[in-house]
Amino acid sequence: MNKIEKSKYDLVVIGGGPAGTPVAIEYGKLNKDKKIALVDILGELGGECLFQGCIPSKIMEASSKHVKILDELSEFGIDLKDSNYKLIWEKIKLRKDEILNKRTKAAREVVDTLENVELIKAKASFVDSKSIKLSFEDGTEKIVDFKKAVIATGSKSFIPKYEGNAASKIWNNSDFFAKMPLPKSLAIIGSGAIAIEFTQILSALGVKIYLFARSNKILKNIDSEASEFLLEELKKDRNITLLLGSDIKRIDFDKNFKINYELDNKTDDLECDLVLSGAGRVANIKSLGLENTKVSFTHKGIIVDEFLKTEDKNIFACGDVVEGFPKFAHTAQYGAHTIAQNLFLEHDLFKMKYDINSWVLFSMPNFASAGLSEKEAKDRDIDIIVDKFNFSTEAKSQIENDDFGYLKFIVAKSSKKIIGISILHNEAASMGGEASLIVGKEMKLKELIDTIHPHPTISESFVMLAKKMMGEIMLEKLKNPVVKTLLKLERWI
Amino acid sequence: MNKIEKSKYDLVVIGGGPAGTPVAIEYGKLNKDKKIALVDILGELGGECLFQGCIPSKIMEASSKHVKILDELSEFGIDLKDSNYKLIWEKIKLRKDEILNKRTKAAREVVDTLENVELIKAKASFVDSKSIKLSFEDGTEKIVDFKKAVIATGSKSFIPKYEGNAASKIWNNSDFFAKMPLPKSLAIIGSGAIAIEFTQILSALGVKIYLFARSNKILKNIDSEASEFLLEELKKDRNITLLLGSDIKRIDFDKNFKINYELDNKTDDLECDLVLSGAGRVANIKSLGLENTKVSFTHKGIIVDEFLKTEDKNIFACGDVVEGFPKFAHTAQYGAHTIAQNLFLEHDLFKMKYDINSWVLFSMPNFASAGLSEKEAKDRDIDIIVDKFNFSTEAKSQIENDDFGYLKFIVAKSSKKIIGISILHNEAASMGGEASLIVGKEMKLKELIDTIHPHPTISESFVMLAKKMMGEIMLEKLKNPVVKTLLKLERWI
Repeated sequence: MNKIEKSKYDLVVIGGGPAGTPVAIEYGKLNKDKKIALVDILGELGGECLFQGCIPSKIMEASSKHVKILDELSEFGIDLKDSNYKLIWEKIKLRKDEILNKRTKAAREVVDTLENVELIKAKASFVDSKSIKLSFEDGTEKIVDFKKAVIATGSKSFIPKYEGNAASKIWNNSDFFAKMPLPKSLAIIGSGAIAIEFTQILSALGVKIYLFARSNKILKNIDSEASEFLLEELKKDRNITLLLGSDIKRIDFDKNFKINYELDNKTDDLECDLVLSGAGRVANIKSLGLENTKVSFTHKGIIVDEFLKTEDKNIFACGDVVEGFPKFAHTAQYGAHTIAQNLFLEHDLFKMKYDINSWVLFSMPNFASAGLSEKEAKDRDIDIIVDKFNFSTEAKSQIENDDFGYLKFIVAKSSKKIIGISILHNEAASMGGEASLIVGKEMKLKELIDTIHPHPTISESFVMLAKKMMGEIMLEKLKNPVVKTLLKLERWI
Repeated sequence: MNKIEKSKYDLVVIGGGPAGTPVAIEYGKLNKDKKIALVDILGELGGECLFQGCIPSKIMEASSKHVKILDELSEFGIDLKDSNYKLIWEKIKLRKDEILNKRTKAAREVVDTLENVELIKAKASFVDSKSIKLSFEDGTEKIVDFKKAVIATGSKSFIPKYEGNAASKIWNNSDFFAKMPLPKSLAIIGSGAIAIEFTQILSALGVKIYLFARSNKILKNIDSEASEFLLEELKKDRNITLLLGSDIKRIDFDKNFKINYELDNKTDDLECDLVLSGAGRVANIKSLGLENTKVSFTHKGIIVDEFLKTEDKNIFACGDVVEGFPKFAHTAQYGAHTIAQNLFLEHDLFKMKYDINSWVLFSMPNFASAGLSEKEAKDRDIDIIVDKFNFSTEAKSQIENDDFGYLKFIVAKSSKKIIGISILHNEAASMGGEASLIVGKEMKLKELIDTIHPHPTISESFVMLAKKMMGEIMLEKLKNPVVKTLLKLERWI
C-alpha cells in the first residue's frame, strides 16, 4: 500500500472511522472525476467505533443480556432443570473478531469498488495549508498536495493521572478490547456512558465491579429520572460495589492492583485484577502538524464552523476530533454527509443540525435520547410542556415482561412540536430510530396521532403519549365555550 | 349493571373492543355534556383482540421465543449444562389471565372516570333508526333512543363445514383461548396470519403441528419474498408437517380427531388431539337487527363510506364488522378516532386513510408492513422504484445474531415518496412504528436521509436503504453533465 499513486489529490481524508470513511465514499461516488486519498494509520476501516467502541461493547452486551434472560425464563413458563451455565469467554472473543472482520472487510469492499478512492496506510501530518506528509510503516515518507482535506482522527479515552507505580497500567476501552480478558474483579473509573455500560455488561457476566467516581451521581447528561432509575439498578446488583463521591489517592501494582482511595473522609484500600478508565475523552490532534496550518484548536479539539470548516478554508474536521462535537459514530456520519454534499455542490449550503441528534446508552435497560433534553430546552428559555408515558400500561411491554421505564416528550408549548424525546426501556435502542425521526422532522403532536401504529408493539407508546398530551391541551381549551364553538367552526381538533 | 340510568343517549356504541371503546372514551372526554352508552355483550372491555386474539397469542409467542433462544445461547458464549427444560404451561396460562385482567381493568378504570359514559352489559339490537333494544342476562329488556350509534361488534373466525361427526368440534382461536390446552398434536386449517402464527408459536413449544391449506402458498397478502422465506422456515421445522394443496374430506372424532384428506390425488388419514381453524373471518352482524334500519350490509360486513357512516345517516360502523376493513385492532382504533373527531366537530371532515395502514405478523421472524405493497402499487398503476436492504450487513443484526431478513421500500418514482415498506426481521415489530410514521407522513427518501439515527441500532437500516436508493437516483442523473451543472446551480442534491 506504500506505493501511493499520486502526489496530488482533490480530497485527502485523514482517519478511516465513521467520520472519515463516509466522506471519502460519498464524495467519491458523486465525483468520479476527482481523486481522493483516505489515509488511516491502521490501513483498516472502522475506527474506534468498530474496533474498540460501540461494536465490541455491544457484542459483550448481547451475551450479558442473554445471561440475564436465564433468570426470567420461569416467568415465561420455562423451567430449566439446571440454570447454571458456563461462560465460554473465548467464544465471545471469537464472535467479536468475526463481526469486526466482517464489517471492516465490507467497508473495504465498498472503497475498492471506487476507482477514484485510494486507501493509504500511513500517519498524516500537515506540512502547510496545501500539503500533507504521509509517514509509512517502513519509515519512508511522501508529501502529497490536496485541494481539500478532512480531519477525522477521532478521540481516545482519557486516563487520569494518579500517584503510585501503576499509573501507566490503567487501561482504557482500547486497551481492553485489544486483549479482551475476563477479569475476576475490575475497578472502573468514571460515571459516564462508557463506565456505566462496562459496569452493567461485565457485572452480568459475573465480574466483580468496583465503580469509582468523584461525583455522587451517574450519567449526568441523561434525563434525570433515567439516571436515578439506573443508579438504583446498580445498587441492587450484588456484583457491583458503588464507590461514588470517592477520590482515588494512588494506584499501585504488585501481582494485583491496589487502589488507595478516600470516601466519606475515610481512606481505604481495595484490590482488583484490572483498572479501566472511562473518565472522559481527548481529541486525537497530536502530531497532525496543525501548527503548520491556520486550523484553530484547543485541548478539547479542532474548532469548526456550522459547515464543519476550520479556519483554514480548505480544511474540514468531523467527528470526535472536533471541539464540542457529540461523540457518536452516527453524528460523525451525519457530519460526513454534510461535508460531502457541500463539497459536491462547491458551496456552503448544508449546516450541521445538532438539535436533531439522537443516541442510545446501552445500559440495562437501554436509554435513548433524541433532540433536546428538558434541561437543554429550559436553558434556551423555550416554553415547554413535558409529559411521560409509563410502559407499565403498555401491552407489548407487559407481554415481554418489560413493563417498566418511560417515554417522555418535550413539546414546544406554542407550536406543539416535539423537540425532545427520552426513552428508558429494554427496547429503547429499537425505538431510538422513530424518536430521531419525530424530532428530525419536527413533528407536532397532532401529526403523530394522525398515523396508524401497529398493535401490539412498543411503538404505540409514541401515539399514546401524543394523544394524552393533546387530550389535555384540548380539555383545557374546551373549558372556554367560545373556544369550543370556534374549534368547531374552524374544524380544528 | 342492569339498572341502566337513561332511556335516551346522545351516542350508543355497540361493542367494547378496540373499535368501540375508544369512540366512547374520546367522544366522552370531548363532550362532557353528552350522554354515552357503551354496550358490550360481556360487559368487559377488550374485545377479541384482548381476550382471544392479539394479546393472548403474543403472550404464547413470548414464551416460544424464549424457548428458541435456548438454542442460540451457545452462539453468545453461554453453555447451559443441561439445556432440557420443562414447559410449565399453567404458568403461561396464569400469565395470560393476569395480563388480560390487568388490561381490561385499566380500560374499565378509564371509562369509570368519565361520568357521562355508561358501560352496559347487554346484547344490542336495532328496533329502528333511532332506538336500540338492550337484552340483559337476566332476561329483561329495555329500549333506548339514540341520536348517533356506532356498530363495533367485530368479527369471528370462520369454521369451514366438513363431512363427519366432528364438524362442530373444530375450534377457532376464541375456543382455543377460552380453555387454552396444550395438545400434543394439533391440526391447523388455513394459510393466513392466524394459522401461521399458531403454527410457529405452538411448534416452538413442542406441539406436533399438521398444517392443512388448500393453497400451495402461505400468507398470500404479504410481500412474496417474505412469504417464501417463511415457508422455508416452516419446512425446516421438524414439529411441522405441511399439507399444502390438500383438501380435507371429512373430520371424525372418536377419542381423537381423525382427518381424512386428499393430497396429490391420494387420500390419507391423520389423527390428532385438536383441530383449529384459522381459515378466515366473518363479521358479527347477526341479531343486530340491521334489517330494521337503513344500514346496508353483505355477508362480509356492513357497508360504510369513507367517514365510516352507514347508509343510515346516524349510524356508523367501525372495525372488523365493516366490509373490507383491515382486520387489525390498531386500524379499528384509528377508525374510532376518525368517528369521534367528526362527531365532535358535527361535520364530516376526517376520512379513513387506509393507505397509511400498518401491521405486524408475529411469525418467526416477524414481518411488518406499512402502506402499499409492491403488488398494490402496481395494481394502481403507480410508477415505482423498489429496493431492499439486507440485514446481513447491518451492525446490530450481526451483534444480536439476527443477520437475516430484509427491509424493502416501495417509492413513487416521480415524487420520491416512500409509499410502502415491508420488513422481515426478528425486530420487525419494533420497527413497524417507524415504518408507519414514514408512510403516514409521506416522507421522501431525502427527508429520511436528513435525520440522525442512533448507532448501532436496527433503525439505521431505514436511512441506509434511503441512501442506497437516493444514491442510485443521483448517479443516474449525474451521467448527464448538464444535469450535474444544473444540480449544482440549483443547489439540490
